[in-house]
Amino acid sequence: MTNLTRADLAVLDTQDPLASRRALFEIPEGVIYLDGNSLGVLPKAARQRVAQVVEQEWGVDLIRSWGKAGWMDLATKVGGKIAALVGAKPNEVIAADTTSLNLFKLASAALKLRPGRRKIVSEAGNFPTDLYILQGVVAQVGQGVELVVAERGRVLDAVDEDTALVVLTHVHYKSAEIFDMAGVTAAVQAKGALMLWDLSHSTGAVDIDLNAAKADLAIGCGYKYLNGGPGAPAFLFVAEQHLPGLEQPLSGWMGHARPFDFVDQYEPVGDIRRALCGTPPVLALSALDSALDAFDGVSMQEVRAKSMLQRRTLLDLIKQRCAAFDFGFEPDGDARTRGSHVSIHHPEAYAICQALIARGVIGDFRAPDALRLGLTPLYLGYADLWDAVEHLVQVMEGKAWDSPQFQARAAVT
Amino acid sequence: MTNLTRADLAVLDTQDPLASRRALFEIPEGVIYLDGNSLGVLPKAARQRVAQVVEQEWGVDLIRSWGKAGWMDLATKVGGKIAALVGAKPNEVIAADTTSLNLFKLASAALKLRPGRRKIVSEAGNFPTDLYILQGVVAQVGQGVELVVAERGRVLDAVDEDTALVVLTHVHYKSAEIFDMAGVTAAVQAKGALMLWDLSHSTGAVDIDLNAAKADLAIGCGYKYLNGGPGAPAFLFVAEQHLPGLEQPLSGWMGHARPFDFVDQYEPVGDIRRALCGTPPVLALSALDSALDAFDGVSMQEVRAKSMLQRRTLLDLIKQRCAAFDFGFEPDGDARTRGSHVSIHHPEAYAICQALIARGVIGDFRAPDALRLGLTPLYLGYADLWDAVEHLVQVMEGKAWDSPQFQARAAVT
Repeated sequence: MTNLTRADLAVLDTQDPLASRRALFEIPEGVIYLDGNSLGVLPKAARQRVAQVVEQEWGVDLIRSWGKAGWMDLATKVGGKIAALVGAKPNEVIAADTTSLNLFKLASAALKLRPGRRKIVSEAGNFPTDLYILQGVVAQVGQGVELVVAERGRVLDAVDEDTALVVLTHVHYKSAEIFDMAGVTAAVQAKGALMLWDLSHSTGAVDIDLNAAKADLAIGCGYKYLNGGPGAPAFLFVAEQHLPGLEQPLSGWMGHARPFDFVDQYEPVGDIRRALCGTPPVLALSALDSALDAFDGVSMQEVRAKSMLQRRTLLDLIKQRCAAFDFGFEPDGDARTRGSHVSIHHPEAYAICQALIARGVIGDFRAPDALRLGLTPLYLGYADLWDAVEHLVQVMEGKAWDSPQFQARAAVT
Repeated sequence: MTNLTRADLAVLDTQDPLASRRALFEIPEGVIYLDGNSLGVLPKAARQRVAQVVEQEWGVDLIRSWGKAGWMDLATKVGGKIAALVGAKPNEVIAADTTSLNLFKLASAALKLRPGRRKIVSEAGNFPTDLYILQGVVAQVGQGVELVVAERGRVLDAVDEDTALVVLTHVHYKSAEIFDMAGVTAAVQAKGALMLWDLSHSTGAVDIDLNAAKADLAIGCGYKYLNGGPGAPAFLFVAEQHLPGLEQPLSGWMGHARPFDFVDQYEPVGDIRRALCGTPPVLALSALDSALDAFDGVSMQEVRAKSMLQRRTLLDLIKQRCAAFDFGFEPDGDARTRGSHVSIHHPEAYAICQALIARGVIGDFRAPDALRLGLTPLYLGYADLWDAVEHLVQVMEGKAWDSPQFQARAAVT
């Protein structure tokens, strides 16, 4: 490996076909933002849209905006935009609630689609809220239904004729490892089980083709690589063939066939809207809607190519310049088997993360010892990576992270 | 009854102790807004706050705002403000998700708090989403648990030793009838069941004392009389004594005792936050937070007194001036047994509603034949009521509502 220089990276920036996208976002002065995998930056379009929704749609048009401003159709409209990013048909995706709630809906529905089967299988160390929600589902349905959590390499061994559903996160939130979506889906379906993918750490950064992989169900997050804003609505995917039979328990009025008839009996609408529950948070959903326009005219293959090159570059830079500092690295895989963030390990990862943040290099810490750095192809440059690593070197050399200021453990950072 | 004049109403406005509150809100030019029971108007403070959250908290501080801007504590902070409006302790209320989802959580939790009991009782014609959600709960838990829906006058007769939970809406969304909260709660608890109140059409307009009524559980809406914006987060109440045993199935990461430990096993936090699920929509929750400040220094008794007088006044005006037009009225009850809206009935209610909206008098239509007019004491004046009825008279006299323009039935208006 030839040592990289900042000039090499500046050249990559000039050749970057996505470079012009950066102007669509507000990147704060003095910040190198490596946390778009946790909360994406503000798209300029979202700022304008939220102002418009507040001032005009809420402030002036008020209740009339349900029709006039299209609030009633916003969830399906946003779903259609997301469908284009994940290889789904527009009628298979809808924006709603939170990732956690959408998992609750679809895992519950899967048990009804596979009656008699009593196992849900997932991965130990999966994104925690996924496991928590599945624990909630099995506790509620009872009847011997259980959650089986297997080590990553043994998940498929745990899938059998009694398995209703397998829930896996496509890109692991810490290690960034990617499951082979088509291969795993086929193996799961060969046992007669349904496959649900959590796309939270993939959507908007990794190319996904749910239809090609024949995935049954999926969920994902709106506030990471989709830049929908803090706590943006999430989304869910239901393969077309499962829609007519989809019975989900969070059966609120927005999923009713005739929500304005105000009848006593729930009757789900025939399409993907049956996955809706209550009234959507219009401000947040509108922000997400406009944020998605940053992907207009971009192919996910282009995004993925940049993400892979940035990931490789960042890891090379850290290995090149931080060899003296005892960072631990994940096993080095083929770039195609890793998502769009890097986790490096250090006993003082928390304090190092704080020291970097104090310098404007914003990544995050994941217990117990991971410094996680996210790569967001739409707005992150290659020279940014050099500068981030330069700060990391300075932090490590100066041991700034050793001071009490950066040792104090806050609840959230 | 002496006939009222517009001058009489103008005098009431000059004597209104809440009159100054109107300046806290954006009331659109030319609009008389009688739909604050469906979507409250825009508080000026909410407009400023949303801009601040977008520009600074999201745009500049980004992920750091979870701590720095207090995002992590926003749900409990908002809950505390709402607690003050409903006679609850601050630690008994939290803002979260939607009314529908909060009902799912608490109804499910109630079944666990009353193990072995297999009935949930509610009212026929209750707010539809409440019934839909309860249908979802019983379908999911199985084990012979059933939803019993009784006519309003027979609800208590349906409550027996097998009843785990009774779910009623405090102010009926159509008729505005109010249940006697303390009396019904006591009767339900005498059978060993738990009482859950839906406060969606009460909170912010009717004085409520959950603690005095010894209510067990409650839910309510953030976007009606609380003016939190379209699809604002909802809230829920759990009486202190039930908190330690509260097990709710939507067990997402925000309800975990140590959400940042990223462990595989769900363990609910000890306090009201165990009713949380996924990441809250921060823009929407912030709007609600600032909207609630309009209630600072106002007593709910004062709000209630104005609401009752406005309701009486509006009904008197309609009866006085629209006697020729065959409106049907709800049975006339004591003002204290009615909430803060009026429903009048007419076979052409839908078209009449459209004709009024075209004139800037915004109420809403509720199937099959109700014209519903909401009274929002914080920003509605008495002379507004005169003007609204004047428009109604003109609509009825001109039969504008008879034209094709106002007959077309839209999905949502």
